[in-house]
Amino acid sequence: MKVLITGFDPFGGEAMNPAYEAVKLLPDTIEGADIIKLEVPTVFGKSIQVLDEAMAKHQPDIVINIGQAGNRFGITPERVAINQDDARITDNEGNQPIDTVIVEEGQPAYFAKMPIKAIVENIKKAGIPAQVSNTAGTFVCNHLMYGLLNLIDTKYPQVRGGFIHVPFATEQVIDRPTSPSLTLEQIAKGLEIAVATTITTHDDIQVQGGAIS
Amino acid sequence: MKVLITGFDPFGGEAMNPAYEAVKLLPDTIEGADIIKLEVPTVFGKSIQVLDEAMAKHQPDIVINIGQAGNRFGITPERVAINQDDARITDNEGNQPIDTVIVEEGQPAYFAKMPIKAIVENIKKAGIPAQVSNTAGTFVCNHLMYGLLNLIDTKYPQVRGGFIHVPFATEQVIDRPTSPSLTLEQIAKGLEIAVATTITTHDDIQVQGGAIS
Amino acid sequence: MKVLITGFDPFGGEAMNPAYEAVKLLPDTIEGADIIKLEVPTVFGKSIQVLDEAMAKHQPDIVINIGQAGNRFGITPERVAINQDDARITDNEGNQPIDTVIVEEGQPAYFAKMPIKAIVENIKKAGIPAQVSNTAGTFVCNHLMYGLLNLIDTKYPQVRGGFIHVPFATEQVIDRPTSPSLTLEQIAKGLEIAVATTITTHDDIQVQGGAIS
Amino acid sequence: MKVLITGFDPFGGEAMNPAYEAVKLLPDTIEGADIIKLEVPTVFGKSIQVLDEAMAKHQPDIVINIGQAGNRFGITPERVAINQDDARITDNEGNQPIDTVIVEEGQPAYFAKMPIKAIVENIKKAGIPAQVSNTAGTFVCNHLMYGLLNLIDTKYPQVRGGFIHVPFATEQVIDRPTSPSLTLEQIAKGLEIAVATTITTHDDIQVQGGAIS
Repeated sequence: MKVLITGFDPFGGEAMNPAYEAVKLLPDTIEGADIIKLEVPTVFGKSIQVLDEAMAKHQPDIVINIGQAGNRFGITPERVAINQDDARITDNEGNQPIDTVIVEEGQPAYFAKMPIKAIVENIKKAGIPAQVSNTAGTFVCNHLMYGLLNLIDTKYPQVRGGFIHVPFATEQVIDRPTSPSLTLEQIAKGLEIAVATTITTHDDIQVQGGAIS
Repeated sequence: MKVLITGFDPFGGEAMNPAYEAVKLLPDTIEGADIIKLEVPTVFGKSIQVLDEAMAKHQPDIVINIGQAGNRFGITPERVAINQDDARITDNEGNQPIDTVIVEEGQPAYFAKMPIKAIVENIKKAGIPAQVSNTAGTFVCNHLMYGLLNLIDTKYPQVRGGFIHVPFATEQVIDRPTSPSLTLEQIAKGLEIAVATTITTHDDIQVQGGAIS
Repeated sequence: MKVLITGFDPFGGEAMNPAYEAVKLLPDTIEGADIIKLEVPTVFGKSIQVLDEAMAKHQPDIVINIGQAGNRFGITPERVAINQDDARITDNEGNQPIDTVIVEEGQPAYFAKMPIKAIVENIKKAGIPAQVSNTAGTFVCNHLMYGLLNLIDTKYPQVRGGFIHVPFATEQVIDRPTSPSLTLEQIAKGLEIAVATTITTHDDIQVQGGAIS
Repeated sequence: MKVLITGFDPFGGEAMNPAYEAVKLLPDTIEGADIIKLEVPTVFGKSIQVLDEAMAKHQPDIVINIGQAGNRFGITPERVAINQDDARITDNEGNQPIDTVIVEEGQPAYFAKMPIKAIVENIKKAGIPAQVSNTAGTFVCNHLMYGLLNLIDTKYPQVRGGFIHVPFATEQVIDRPTSPSLTLEQIAKGLEIAVATTITTHDDIQVQGGAIS
């Protein structure tokens, strides 16, 4: 089995992105599956293209995208991606779409195709804060999650996957005295558990009304 | 023109619900339109039935549902409702659906059919905190918003509308020293502005990819 | 009876200071006492001089200083002032003392000489959030509170008084989506209750170990 | 050189106290000094007695007390202790003093006798959040800090020391989704740096108006 796991490059003036920094700390195999690590650009459009090319090349069974959500307290698998870009700041190439669709004629939203509640439970059992999130926002994170699930829907129907937001790494909050954080080691451990949980539930995932839980 | 505006009854152990308390403070006409006020039960299923009956009876041009979102800082029009119930607590009749669809074969999500960004701008101009929200949660608030937009989609295509979450009223936070609040008067003023904004933009709303902004 | 109540002028880039704006809204008499309102400069040293001159001129029975504490959720009477200035930003005349004493050979701290817990209880009974605070910080607010209590200790032993921090007014947080606030009317009502409570308990205040509660 | 470092036992319903758990992780020598670790009871009165006995027995050069301050984001050396107990909850033996003095005829407050700003800077340089705090509260933490500084003032004038509050350990916030935390390893590392900083500045501490900075 192959797992493709992506992390964004830094954006919004940050010196690092804990998403890809944590991805880099993952082992090369988890539960016997090969782990393919990929940095993706924080750019509308291009992030989905890079993902599509990597899925075509590696033919993974599972794809999980990781992004930074500053000011969240724990690791938060996303429940749903919506078909809308609405950027408060520019992306890394200066794009700032306002209230535009991601995929013309695309369905309004996609629910995650991985066991988000089991992931949360298993991460918490390991002593790391985690919660289901009901919004991935309207910036490049939601954009890529929607893109992934649209690719699964239209081109790679056998693939499972979704998106996980992670908080700031502790290094990032030294001069932000009211921002929560986790260590990169905690974030990486949480992601490893998320991957393992998705692998081990791969064959018996329950799909209810489009949502997997 | 007729505007139907609803507010939930108290739930979750609260003595009051600022949603309907603020609705009660609204004037009977706004921008020349008749304002019809309706309390709806915080109950899965029944809340949509009550709304459907009121829409059939009053034939409103605009419908806006109001709900409480404790710990939010401002008035927050919702961008999107998702086709999923997932209740952390029971509703007022003991129901607690977990990861179930609201409408079988319903589309995954609906975007608000009212000008949520213009509403936010106008409320802020009046000196009251407001923001667009990207999630109405997965409790009865999202349920009713999805129900409303599904009714519009399937039975009342000429109707405009959506959902607005309001914070705790100040009375509710006296013994919650770290919970934000607004006064009921501020909330009511914000809702009046939301109604007026929706009325005055009624004829020239831009629809982009399903979302109105 | 005479009550002198002061509020600072705006500082730190704010367009207004809710402290003096709320003081201006107070009635001219409370519980039969004359209310003397005074704006004081947010300046180390000068703020105490202005206060001293006003106390010499008006000979008040009670003196209460009001200051802004952004990001507090309620009205917060201060328990204690410490003999130390330590400024993170400059005051309104460019002074920025770091770890210096306010009064040479002054005692390390003074406890409030007004009934801070009764004030909190009475403000809460009126439906307005309030809490005792254990620190007035180390900027001009603590400086003036220490100065007041030192003046009482050394020159005006019959006077009662203290310091109350108030949160941002709602107008100030429109573009600070995670900052709490109260309306100026709520703040003024809270201050009126604080003054009334101090007047009515004036004769039977319990002093325990230097602290009044 | 000898350093006595104390941590409280669990209180307030917590299963652990990160203060003493982190103290246990400290090395046995820091900068050549012997580290003596002591668990103290979260009890008014008794905590000071236990400290006094340990100081008499070990004759330390430096004493630092560690306590838990839930919902703080970083490691926070305290600037000042005040001569007042005011307990919102009972201590571990059922005591709940309200507005009482700690030491009859004791001075109103004591400033820390260790370099709190250098400690903060050094902890931050190591990538761990830290800030100076201006209040240790009015529960057993402030009580013990006042007790320590009073013992130094009256019996052990050559001793340096103070109090440091630490946030929840990550294990404690798994079911508190909006509480910040640090890992025990981060807390222990921060405390080690605090001890090292106090040792290395021992001979040239600047005392200004009673406060050390």
